Amino acid sequence: MASLRRTLTAVSPAVLFHKHTVCRAIQQQADMPARVHCATRYLMNSSNRRLSYSTQVNLSKSLFRRTLTTQAQAEGAPLVLRRDEGGIRWLKFNNERKRNALSLAMLDCLKQELMEGGEDEKVRVLILTSEGPAFSSGHDLSELTSATGHEYHKKVFRRCTEVMTLVQDIPVPVMAEVRGLATAAGCQLVASCDVAIAAETARFATPGVNIGLFCSTPGVALARAVPRKVAMEMLLTGFPISASEAFRAGLVSKVVPEDKVEEETLKIARKICDTSRSVTAIGKACFYNQIMWDRNTAYRHAEDVMVSNLQIKDGQEGIGAFLQKRHPVWTHNEDPVDKE
Amino acid sequence: MASLRRTLTAVSPAVLFHKHTVCRAIQQQADMPARVHCATRYLMNSSNRRLSYSTQVNLSKSLFRRTLTTQAQAEGAPLVLRRDEGGIRWLKFNNERKRNALSLAMLDCLKQELMEGGEDEKVRVLILTSEGPAFSSGHDLSELTSATGHEYHKKVFRRCTEVMTLVQDIPVPVMAEVRGLATAAGCQLVASCDVAIAAETARFATPGVNIGLFCSTPGVALARAVPRKVAMEMLLTGFPISASEAFRAGLVSKVVPEDKVEEETLKIARKICDTSRSVTAIGKACFYNQIMWDRNTAYRHAEDVMVSNLQIKDGQEGIGAFLQKRHPVWTHNEDPVDKE
Amino acid sequence: MASLRRTLTAVSPAVLFHKHTVCRAIQQQADMPARVHCATRYLMNSSNRRLSYSTQVNLSKSLFRRTLTTQAQAEGAPLVLRRDEGGIRWLKFNNERKRNALSLAMLDCLKQELMEGGEDEKVRVLILTSEGPAFSSGHDLSELTSATGHEYHKKVFRRCTEVMTLVQDIPVPVMAEVRGLATAAGCQLVASCDVAIAAETARFATPGVNIGLFCSTPGVALARAVPRKVAMEMLLTGFPISASEAFRAGLVSKVVPEDKVEEETLKIARKICDTSRSVTAIGKACFYNQIMWDRNTAYRHAEDVMVSNLQIKDGQEGIGAFLQKRHPVWTHNEDPVDKE
Repeated sequence: MASLRRTLTAVSPAVLFHKHTVCRAIQQQADMPARVHCATRYLMNSSNRRLSYSTQVNLSKSLFRRTLTTQAQAEGAPLVLRRDEGGIRWLKFNNERKRNALSLAMLDCLKQELMEGGEDEKVRVLILTSEGPAFSSGHDLSELTSATGHEYHKKVFRRCTEVMTLVQDIPVPVMAEVRGLATAAGCQLVASCDVAIAAETARFATPGVNIGLFCSTPGVALARAVPRKVAMEMLLTGFPISASEAFRAGLVSKVVPEDKVEEETLKIARKICDTSRSVTAIGKACFYNQIMWDRNTAYRHAEDVMVSNLQIKDGQEGIGAFLQKRHPVWTHNEDPVDKE
Repeated sequence: MASLRRTLTAVSPAVLFHKHTVCRAIQQQADMPARVHCATRYLMNSSNRRLSYSTQVNLSKSLFRRTLTTQAQAEGAPLVLRRDEGGIRWLKFNNERKRNALSLAMLDCLKQELMEGGEDEKVRVLILTSEGPAFSSGHDLSELTSATGHEYHKKVFRRCTEVMTLVQDIPVPVMAEVRGLATAAGCQLVASCDVAIAAETARFATPGVNIGLFCSTPGVALARAVPRKVAMEMLLTGFPISASEAFRAGLVSKVVPEDKVEEETLKIARKICDTSRSVTAIGKACFYNQIMWDRNTAYRHAEDVMVSNLQIKDGQEGIGAFLQKRHPVWTHNEDPVDKE
Repeated sequence: MASLRRTLTAVSPAVLFHKHTVCRAIQQQADMPARVHCATRYLMNSSNRRLSYSTQVNLSKSLFRRTLTTQAQAEGAPLVLRRDEGGIRWLKFNNERKRNALSLAMLDCLKQELMEGGEDEKVRVLILTSEGPAFSSGHDLSELTSATGHEYHKKVFRRCTEVMTLVQDIPVPVMAEVRGLATAAGCQLVASCDVAIAAETARFATPGVNIGLFCSTPGVALARAVPRKVAMEMLLTGFPISASEAFRAGLVSKVVPEDKVEEETLKIARKICDTSRSVTAIGKACFYNQIMWDRNTAYRHAEDVMVSNLQIKDGQEGIGAFLQKRHPVWTHNEDPVDKE
């Protein structure tokens, strides 16, 4: 499996990923924002943001898949390439020419991929990755001119928030494997991930001030990932920080030489695959819930979660296996322990 | 006093601590969770969590002390050894065989010790310490099987939360002196302490995923002590981090060679003993209150605390001594300045 | 401009800053707290805290300026020296004899300077700086004895909070350039700034416990800048931390040799001057608002801010310049894009 990524990058991604690609928004769309996705408009209206994660999945599945499949097959390469192996799903940005900009089309892809990854029981962990000099350069500025208009801008930022929060709200862990530059919403995406492994050559910046658009939404994720002084200097100056600075600040989990990034990412991804899907889902959800409450409320919730965790089969299987010194066999679902 | 711990570890703890031991839950109890502490059941019901810290102390004092004394003298070694010297109280986990597991009996001991330490005017600082390869391994898994039952699980996590929050809510500082492994609720305890000094050889982990029980409650303390990426990697993988990684993340206050741990801990403990008990109590309470509020509310509260602090004798004594270039003489109580 | 500070320190500050000084509370006043500022009392009453930032500016401008000008010219050197160059405004503490104590007079000066700096359209960034062994030693203890009285203490802490929160609430970034010791409210001020550059020789402490007055209000800023364990050790022991420890904890943005402090500060200040005043103001306000909310509320607000940011001329100018590969020309105001 150490050779997996080498294989993956040696072959044309369009060929290799052909069978697996689900996200069929295409590169041309990134250049034509105004006419994209008419069929998915229903998903983008404001009431949508109040729908639960699972309702969104149900609503969007049929619509999105059908529409974009047709377009993608007709029009060109997908914006995100998907690759599955042993519970690990790689999502690779595939718009190097535009530095993997988070255009509305790209955001739609990511939203769809995150929702499907969260629903698919075979998937245990998602890895966001890239090729070339940029992990992601953030929003596509050509979509943010007066020409595209106010309502379009609202839609872009709404979708961006949906993606960033889905990263934390879906039941499977999401990792970032960062090579090259992650800027603006690209940096926000790294800050939002559960785990991020960076190459020594990676760089991070929130340079919105340079183009008159302060990185206010990236600041939401950044302020929750790094100390305030680090966030403010990045936001006020736009100066990039190095991978090791990002590590010291807590923006990334680990920094390794570029040729070790895959190995290090896999080490964590495989470990996640060894655990129970449902237990990880319970814990991830609890973490992001409790973190926004005061300590006592957080504990009250987390206590209930622990007690519930003990009532599912995988909870008792794990403890039983430990006490009996054997390997656990997970169901990966939330079935309760049989009453005897 | 530098030789204090050497003395302490050279002699059998059962002898040395005999006169001082208050927490008399015994090691055997850790193996027999279901029948422990019938006399203290009143303390454990759900209304209890709404009682104030001081009401809890009054309620439990007579009950707990009487009951457990009898049991302990009858049945074996105490789970926590207590040692007092010059305002410093060491609480040493004494169940090396079970890696100082936080069984319900151990949690009862700790709760009792924290409440008494908080009430005893001679005590200025508590130091949680251990011997052997584990600081604490967290919950006793044999207590968390289906066999012990739902209500028992609830009681265990309720008691654990009481201990973790008492660490922060009692008026005296609580330090952890960490040698060896601190895992799961053991790691949570370190994260909850005001100050933690770790030996270079210490390790920290939240490995609940391995046994199908995500460390959701430890995550509450962890998420408030370290950057999110560090917490999430620990929680999702269960991989241990080293003492120096724990230090960089903010989980511990300092890392020193194993043979300097006592010295470094004492340096801070003695400094705390040099200050006014009441002033430290005022400040500690304010810190943990304000930290959960927005900035403006936090300031409004902290301003009031500062002004009140100036109205007690020790507040004016300290300022007076400073202006007169002499050593302050503390009352250690909250008596107001005499009206003239 | 690199020689600016050399010039600035070579000449007597009273001469150099004469023309520019606005803050005319004088050094003698620091020794006579009870009789200071009768003319500005209106500003200090409790209803004042509920006034918006801009109302405060309007109310105070005429009163404060007139009163203190007269006093300063009559009585002595100003407590804060002001120097403007190219959008950068230095505010230099000028009470080395009292280690730049934050007396009520000094706090009044700072409040006034922050409000004026926030209003003055020529000013793009404020730099708090000092000369001598102390950046600032915090409150003037002679003002906190029983002799000055309860109401006076309340006023001091109210004013201090106003200063600390204004640092974050005014529309221009505020930097600290820290040489020497920053203690108690002096450390709080560093923690409150947007960016802080420290000399290697700088030291930081919250030593209130030593004088019976726990640093509860400094703790509000400290707890929001550094990990909890770092804050608690500083607060409970009063021990100073080094510049590099402060950097690692996130209390300062950067540590450089003493002779590079000005250069490093200027690099950031000039970068801020290159950006649009209004865009920076929008972003700074959003940052300190969203940081106190839960993630979803934070995003909802920040999304609106991004969309609004795109509707002002400077937002569209920046994006247009980028797409057209030219330098942007900012209006620095919040004028909306012309409707065509």
